[in-house]
Amino acid sequence: MADFPKSVTLHEEGPREGFQIEPGPIPTGRKIELIEALAETGLKHMQIVSFVNPKKVPGMADAEDVVRGFRPRPGVAYTGLWVNEKGLERARASGKLTLEGKISIYASEKFSMRNNNRTAAQEFEYARRVVDEYRAQGIPVERGSVASAFGCNFQGVIPISTVLDILRRIFEIAEENAIRLKEISLADTMAWATPLTIRRTLGAIREKYPDMRFNLHLHDTRGMGVANAYAALEMGVDMFDSCVAGLGGCPFAGHKGAAGNVCTEDLVFMCEEMGIETGIDLEKLLDCARLAEEIVGHPLPGSVMKGGSLKRFRGAVQ
Amino acid sequence: MADFPKSVTLHEEGPREGFQIEPGPIPTGRKIELIEALAETGLKHMQIVSFVNPKKVPGMADAEDVVRGFRPRPGVAYTGLWVNEKGLERARASGKLTLEGKISIYASEKFSMRNNNRTAAQEFEYARRVVDEYRAQGIPVERGSVASAFGCNFQGVIPISTVLDILRRIFEIAEENAIRLKEISLADTMAWATPLTIRRTLGAIREKYPDMRFNLHLHDTRGMGVANAYAALEMGVDMFDSCVAGLGGCPFAGHKGAAGNVCTEDLVFMCEEMGIETGIDLEKLLDCARLAEEIVGHPLPGSVMKGGSLKRFRGAVQ
Repeated sequence: MADFPKSVTLHEEGPREGFQIEPGPIPTGRKIELIEALAETGLKHMQIVSFVNPKKVPGMADAEDVVRGFRPRPGVAYTGLWVNEKGLERARASGKLTLEGKISIYASEKFSMRNNNRTAAQEFEYARRVVDEYRAQGIPVERGSVASAFGCNFQGVIPISTVLDILRRIFEIAEENAIRLKEISLADTMAWATPLTIRRTLGAIREKYPDMRFNLHLHDTRGMGVANAYAALEMGVDMFDSCVAGLGGCPFAGHKGAAGNVCTEDLVFMCEEMGIETGIDLEKLLDCARLAEEIVGHPLPGSVMKGGSLKRFRGAVQ
Repeated sequence: MADFPKSVTLHEEGPREGFQIEPGPIPTGRKIELIEALAETGLKHMQIVSFVNPKKVPGMADAEDVVRGFRPRPGVAYTGLWVNEKGLERARASGKLTLEGKISIYASEKFSMRNNNRTAAQEFEYARRVVDEYRAQGIPVERGSVASAFGCNFQGVIPISTVLDILRRIFEIAEENAIRLKEISLADTMAWATPLTIRRTLGAIREKYPDMRFNLHLHDTRGMGVANAYAALEMGVDMFDSCVAGLGGCPFAGHKGAAGNVCTEDLVFMCEEMGIETGIDLEKLLDCARLAEEIVGHPLPGSVMKGGSLKRFRGAVQ
């Protein structure tokens, strides 16, 4: 039987995942418009920028301007992404973001080379160095994270044993630094997961780490995003990254024109219809999805934004 | 724990569901091209036309021409849809189709009125009359079918008790006619189902009808199609209707621009990746999906057709 959670936490990543991949420049003001609108929906956690090389990811060249410009809503945590010390320093210097440390490793060395230009050994070296930085700066570290945890377009299937091995080493680094991790996050960066591999991988990890809270970062490139989230909900997983309107995708993942991240409002629809609380106002979120589509100027893959919620039909008299 | 089937049967409905809803006319020859291509993928069952009022559904005005024109592949069952005696007569007269009788009732009277211009009482009357016809013509009847079984844009939520009540009356009609039904089909005509309502509804029906094989006809208007299919697979359901490239939708369902039926190749991808056999060549099916998109002349909602299968990546060396 299913072990559905009573409520889920959704970490919105649309502004970061979405705007970093758009081919044309998005005006900073429009990014801020979406960020501020999203904060009105009930979302409490939002990744709004990445501090990465502007030559490689030109869509994020204005990260500092975005952070400077938006009006934060009290009670909402705004975060940024970094993949090296320089990015961390930019995130810290920007001043308005909640800094969340994590120990994050790519399960695929080939993708790590392509995305971060680091070998597997260098990834672990970086993880050690950055944890030192977190300690020095007083940045809390609660999460161990495995990227491309299910498969990789450049490396093929990722066996569960590889994921377990990486987690073992992540927990070693945590222990060396007297860090007590609370969360394990798995990213299906290139959309290889199916509901069955979600079950198997989560099951195998939970056997070793029964007290960890799980987070899933799902992509919808092959249409499995919502089904994968459902399989995780059945196992009690209650934290997901997602993107409004299904914005996103990774600029280095090697597939073009495909759907991006699992869509926030489609997940909200599913959860709320199943009685799992999200704390999010679906209708307001649908407005944000339409705004996101208007801002990027091309159709986005979200479904409920096109099909509509059931709200207006629910009252239909029998 | 899940009770996945070893294999699933997919009933392709793209040519019928898809072409009936397209706003512009599709040349008959192009319909036939897709039907013939689909038959090369391993699909064994295909609904290719509907025999309905050409004034209401102009996209199906050429149903007879389609049937006349296509070259059937041995071993593939080609079927048509009808909703009244006139349609049945046209299907029979067309000569090349496998005629499958079923006892089919709309759970929503309002939708039945809109789609078939019949009250609930008239639906049951029609069901009785048409079963007589099936007997007279020697058309086998193995399926009881409930349409709009989860909810209706015109009537609201459909309670499980209503579905059970309709099934009870369907089985009464069968019994009166010495028909032994083997299958129960539920259609989520207007995409109200979630994985949880799939579980609950199938569970409640299976308690009363433990020996029936289930079929699901899912729409993907709100992005739940694949997740709903997964929830059913977990319960051992091994038969689904689906549409290549996610063609389809219902011309009378009252939502425009939304996704159509659950996408055949996305289901095939999920099943095959999970070790559930479909008998279908995914790469050939993806070619059909691209052909369908070219024929209708606008983007179709299927995901794997855009994101690609994992075949070319699977061999990536570690």
